[in-house]
Amino acid sequence: MTRYRVGILGATGAVGQKFIALLGRHPWFTVSALGASERSAGKTYAHAANWIEPVELPAPIADMVVRPCEPSAFTDVDFVFSGLDSSVATEVEGAFAAAGIPVISNAKNYREHPSVPLLVPEVNPDHTALIRTQTFDPKGKGFIVTNPNCVAVPLVVALRPLVDAFGVETLVITSLQAVSGAGYPGVPSMDILGNVIPYISGEEPKIASEPRKLLGTLNAAGTAVDELPIASQATATRVPTLEGHLLTVVARLTRKPASIDAVRDVIRNWKSPLAGMELPTAPAQPLVLFDDHKSPQPRRHSYAQDGMQVSMGRLRLSEVFDVAFVCLGHNTVRGAAGGAILNAELLVKQGFLVP
Amino acid sequence: MTRYRVGILGATGAVGQKFIALLGRHPWFTVSALGASERSAGKTYAHAANWIEPVELPAPIADMVVRPCEPSAFTDVDFVFSGLDSSVATEVEGAFAAAGIPVISNAKNYREHPSVPLLVPEVNPDHTALIRTQTFDPKGKGFIVTNPNCVAVPLVVALRPLVDAFGVETLVITSLQAVSGAGYPGVPSMDILGNVIPYISGEEPKIASEPRKLLGTLNAAGTAVDELPIASQATATRVPTLEGHLLTVVARLTRKPASIDAVRDVIRNWKSPLAGMELPTAPAQPLVLFDDHKSPQPRRHSYAQDGMQVSMGRLRLSEVFDVAFVCLGHNTVRGAAGGAILNAELLVKQGFLVP
Amino acid sequence: MTRYRVGILGATGAVGQKFIALLGRHPWFTVSALGASERSAGKTYAHAANWIEPVELPAPIADMVVRPCEPSAFTDVDFVFSGLDSSVATEVEGAFAAAGIPVISNAKNYREHPSVPLLVPEVNPDHTALIRTQTFDPKGKGFIVTNPNCVAVPLVVALRPLVDAFGVETLVITSLQAVSGAGYPGVPSMDILGNVIPYISGEEPKIASEPRKLLGTLNAAGTAVDELPIASQATATRVPTLEGHLLTVVARLTRKPASIDAVRDVIRNWKSPLAGMELPTAPAQPLVLFDDHKSPQPRRHSYAQDGMQVSMGRLRLSEVFDVAFVCLGHNTVRGAAGGAILNAELLVKQGFLVP
Amino acid sequence: MTRYRVGILGATGAVGQKFIALLGRHPWFTVSALGASERSAGKTYAHAANWIEPVELPAPIADMVVRPCEPSAFTDVDFVFSGLDSSVATEVEGAFAAAGIPVISNAKNYREHPSVPLLVPEVNPDHTALIRTQTFDPKGKGFIVTNPNCVAVPLVVALRPLVDAFGVETLVITSLQAVSGAGYPGVPSMDILGNVIPYISGEEPKIASEPRKLLGTLNAAGTAVDELPIASQATATRVPTLEGHLLTVVARLTRKPASIDAVRDVIRNWKSPLAGMELPTAPAQPLVLFDDHKSPQPRRHSYAQDGMQVSMGRLRLSEVFDVAFVCLGHNTVRGAAGGAILNAELLVKQGFLVP
Repeated sequence: MTRYRVGILGATGAVGQKFIALLGRHPWFTVSALGASERSAGKTYAHAANWIEPVELPAPIADMVVRPCEPSAFTDVDFVFSGLDSSVATEVEGAFAAAGIPVISNAKNYREHPSVPLLVPEVNPDHTALIRTQTFDPKGKGFIVTNPNCVAVPLVVALRPLVDAFGVETLVITSLQAVSGAGYPGVPSMDILGNVIPYISGEEPKIASEPRKLLGTLNAAGTAVDELPIASQATATRVPTLEGHLLTVVARLTRKPASIDAVRDVIRNWKSPLAGMELPTAPAQPLVLFDDHKSPQPRRHSYAQDGMQVSMGRLRLSEVFDVAFVCLGHNTVRGAAGGAILNAELLVKQGFLVP
Repeated sequence: MTRYRVGILGATGAVGQKFIALLGRHPWFTVSALGASERSAGKTYAHAANWIEPVELPAPIADMVVRPCEPSAFTDVDFVFSGLDSSVATEVEGAFAAAGIPVISNAKNYREHPSVPLLVPEVNPDHTALIRTQTFDPKGKGFIVTNPNCVAVPLVVALRPLVDAFGVETLVITSLQAVSGAGYPGVPSMDILGNVIPYISGEEPKIASEPRKLLGTLNAAGTAVDELPIASQATATRVPTLEGHLLTVVARLTRKPASIDAVRDVIRNWKSPLAGMELPTAPAQPLVLFDDHKSPQPRRHSYAQDGMQVSMGRLRLSEVFDVAFVCLGHNTVRGAAGGAILNAELLVKQGFLVP
Repeated sequence: MTRYRVGILGATGAVGQKFIALLGRHPWFTVSALGASERSAGKTYAHAANWIEPVELPAPIADMVVRPCEPSAFTDVDFVFSGLDSSVATEVEGAFAAAGIPVISNAKNYREHPSVPLLVPEVNPDHTALIRTQTFDPKGKGFIVTNPNCVAVPLVVALRPLVDAFGVETLVITSLQAVSGAGYPGVPSMDILGNVIPYISGEEPKIASEPRKLLGTLNAAGTAVDELPIASQATATRVPTLEGHLLTVVARLTRKPASIDAVRDVIRNWKSPLAGMELPTAPAQPLVLFDDHKSPQPRRHSYAQDGMQVSMGRLRLSEVFDVAFVCLGHNTVRGAAGGAILNAELLVKQGFLVP
Repeated sequence: MTRYRVGILGATGAVGQKFIALLGRHPWFTVSALGASERSAGKTYAHAANWIEPVELPAPIADMVVRPCEPSAFTDVDFVFSGLDSSVATEVEGAFAAAGIPVISNAKNYREHPSVPLLVPEVNPDHTALIRTQTFDPKGKGFIVTNPNCVAVPLVVALRPLVDAFGVETLVITSLQAVSGAGYPGVPSMDILGNVIPYISGEEPKIASEPRKLLGTLNAAGTAVDELPIASQATATRVPTLEGHLLTVVARLTRKPASIDAVRDVIRNWKSPLAGMELPTAPAQPLVLFDDHKSPQPRRHSYAQDGMQVSMGRLRLSEVFDVAFVCLGHNTVRGAAGGAILNAELLVKQGFLVP
């Protein structure tokens, strides 16, 4: 297969580092350009970045010279992954798209844009049709695709079978989020050692709103997504875990399931739309339902299937609504860099990305 | 004031130790007898117990000889606190009550018994009238009073003003519980370091059921409690905190509040029925509502007012139900030994306990 | 007693906050002025500081307007405590002393200055004589006194009896230091959760050098300290504890003890030079030796005697040198703000500080 | 290659589980029999064991019926790995050896036995000659080989080049040990969350004594090991890390190195005696020296080279002795099950184990 030359914007940050770590042995994509802020541009990556990934920094990456985040510095790549900070992502990502360079972004800035797909390949692969409505690049080559907030990912993967089989109308969610979700240096240890912080700035609105677009329906013309009207109440907490966001969820369904076994069967029998596509980063089983009471757990299950598995457990009928469960996803893999890489793989398969 | 001689059943366990630590300088109660299992009976307390409280073991307690948990060994006390394991509490507590020794218990065994008060003094002080219906002791001197599960305590204190002002019909609760809730040795460190366990055995039914009795109404004859019909969905999780159970709560109210400020005022203006009683363990302000987003936190606020404060925060209207909030209470003080001591103080004031 | 009006330099930082928390109910000292950087000056303290102490911010402090750290803004205080960052302490503390305002400093800048006492009252109270040799203030009113590094404090308190009885020649030390030692925000949680970092910048030289001055001998004229020649090898590590620095120590003595009991007796019989002085912050027993194998522990023993106790344990003869032990002190109380307050109390008693 | 059928004694415990996890895809060894206590014998492994390894329990293992730990139940294996508790290992391991079944043990019971090799393949591969002096099995087929304490492993690997090049006479060691070293359930979370325990029962004597045998010299006849006379002072502490024991070490050398660079070169140029042997579990580079100050760290480096790497860092000359450094090894892989598997691989290569 032809390899794609990819750039990484925001390469020195936590998400950028995760892109580099995950792409180290990717069969399709070769990291050939790194972009970061003015402060880092011109230095070798080894000097510019405070490498915190547990795997060793690949030698070819270490020696690359960091470029400024300008399209003119990335004319030799096929597309870019963006781990940019939201303070600059609107401008920079827009500029890259306008210059004809596709942007596969982890930033939140364009997630609500009506012509930008908010994409989880197992959940809404058809939403990529929105790309054709984008007007960033008059020549039609550049575009932007985003992946959702790290909490929304396990949530919508767990909800997909329930929405299809029963309809979902209302959600009450509490998230127990890992410190890596705040980037680096992120959460001070004095705040979180042996503690819980019952609030994460900006998180709850995203947990409520993003699933509406993700689980929404592409209209017949393929030009817009009709959102799924779910009423949501979310409380986002920070807990002293390293990786893996755990959610407790209670859901009201439109059509009442006959029994908890019926719900269980729906989840177990759900077929991912990616089955058979052979996307390198797609997990064999994107949604795994545990039957034992004590699973899933952030430390024990976040890395299942290389961090791309969404885990579900504690499934039971609810006295209040219809079903209750917990779900878990690796926040910086499945919920960020890994999810974006999977997005790019789908876009290759669908013909949106070309070498 | 006349001092009361008190015994402690289950004195070597985690709850028993907390009783000893908290009673060290109590103005009314003097620990004069310690009871534990056959294995410990006959040894000095210093030898029998693996003292894990952070304060030093008081010297007079250290030298006391542990007694078997039989009423005949406790004829010289005015009443006993029970920190007994539930595997033996039914029999032992029943025997003490039958022998005329009042039992102020932290065990779960008698909580659902229709003539045993499940008591949180700020919430349902009148429920002690049930004592008069008890038949454990033909002579009418012995009785049993229990305090609720450590999660139920902050929950019902936070709900009391809402129930009174608006009525509460439905609850969705997620608890983030500290390891000390499992006693000692309790939760293995290999299970919980950097992890969350999304289940605690036996906890969720108690979180759902106990508030119904606690918030229920004593009938006119004072002979029974009519439970408050609240539908509850609870998910109990264990997190790597040491002390303080944090709850996220979403509640449907019977009468809709005009605004979030109206709810806030109701909470801030609520008067504890203990005001003016001068019970030594009663906190000046039993329910404290924080306005900043990041409070309350287990490590920073559990010990407020010597661990007897219930803290509330993140109060907001909910898209799904009516109000959402988080609340926090010290699980081994407010939710266990400290709560039981406060129960005993109320019973002294009400005349049920006499020296 | 006449109260002293005290200022706090660096009042918004972690050490400054600890000064405020500890001085809340001090019988001699009243906080009457707060100084911080240009960024904070002019704001109320409540607005300028991100209050992280577990006790509530005292209302009078909250409303104080923060001043710039210039002597002209502190003409109404009797002396100042300094929690200044080392990047500015040399200049600012020097200016205050020159302006006639005594500076009781926690900063490291003047610790090695030959005429500045490096003071731990229980260890070298006579070193304050050096003050008379200081030339910061031509009028002789302003001066500087420093307390040592937070690791050096428990070390020298534990060594004092050994130096006196046996002489100490060589030390091998490993420190296991709490995250609060790095201030706030300090150590990122992603670095330290479930981890150890085997290095702390700048710490090891101080652990080796400061005890030489602290345990040194004031010459007969009272004009200089002859350092105690101890050869030291220190390894400083960061561990995921919140408060309390634990040290493992192996020491070669000049005169061999007859037995471990002889060493134990020397430690237990040691008399603090502060005994009988009634300094408010002085612990009744500054050095406590534990006999059980598992003590002292940072979480369980750091707060003993309001955080002013130095704890010692695991005392044993060593196959390699002569004795081995562990010791522990609360790093931000005994090792920082609390130690500085005790220094000020000694200086009051000795007549160096006058209202 | 012919595969070996191996049994695991103590299969349900923490070490036994690690054997199963590590042998899951071993190219030479197939787990074909599992032994555990009477309580477990007769049950399927899935029922008998509380599986705590992060990888999924292999299906063929799950269905195996656990056998009693008696030689007669293991006649169909080529040898056994022992993860037995020390309370039974003396008897059981002796019985297996006597019955002609080689025992590759992780238990401590036979480590000091003069004819039992205490083996770390990179350190003393020739010590296996002692096997020929064993008399457990009159027919000469059964024997016992042990691996050392989990702290001793990284220590002796780090010391091997120093002993060879300079000689090592004296050590002062502090260990910061992970909770997994205490097995499961092991250390209660209430003891270790945010805390350090400055003592581990039984650990310090092993840290001092085992390196003497491991680094000792096999006599010319191959019948005994002359121990290396190292004087050691060890302090063993438990810290809240999950995996990886970190050691701080200060060493007096016999021949003084010319410079720290000379020491560094000796370590970097050291050749493992396993080089070229192609043992499946042997790491390509058994000893890795880090130059940056902040490495190695338990959480970041324990799993390097599948947990078989010994990491070294902070190498420097010492004011007190000659060199100081820190070292790290994965305690349950390199220091236990993985080390034992590597031992078995060496024994295969040397011809001691035959299918």
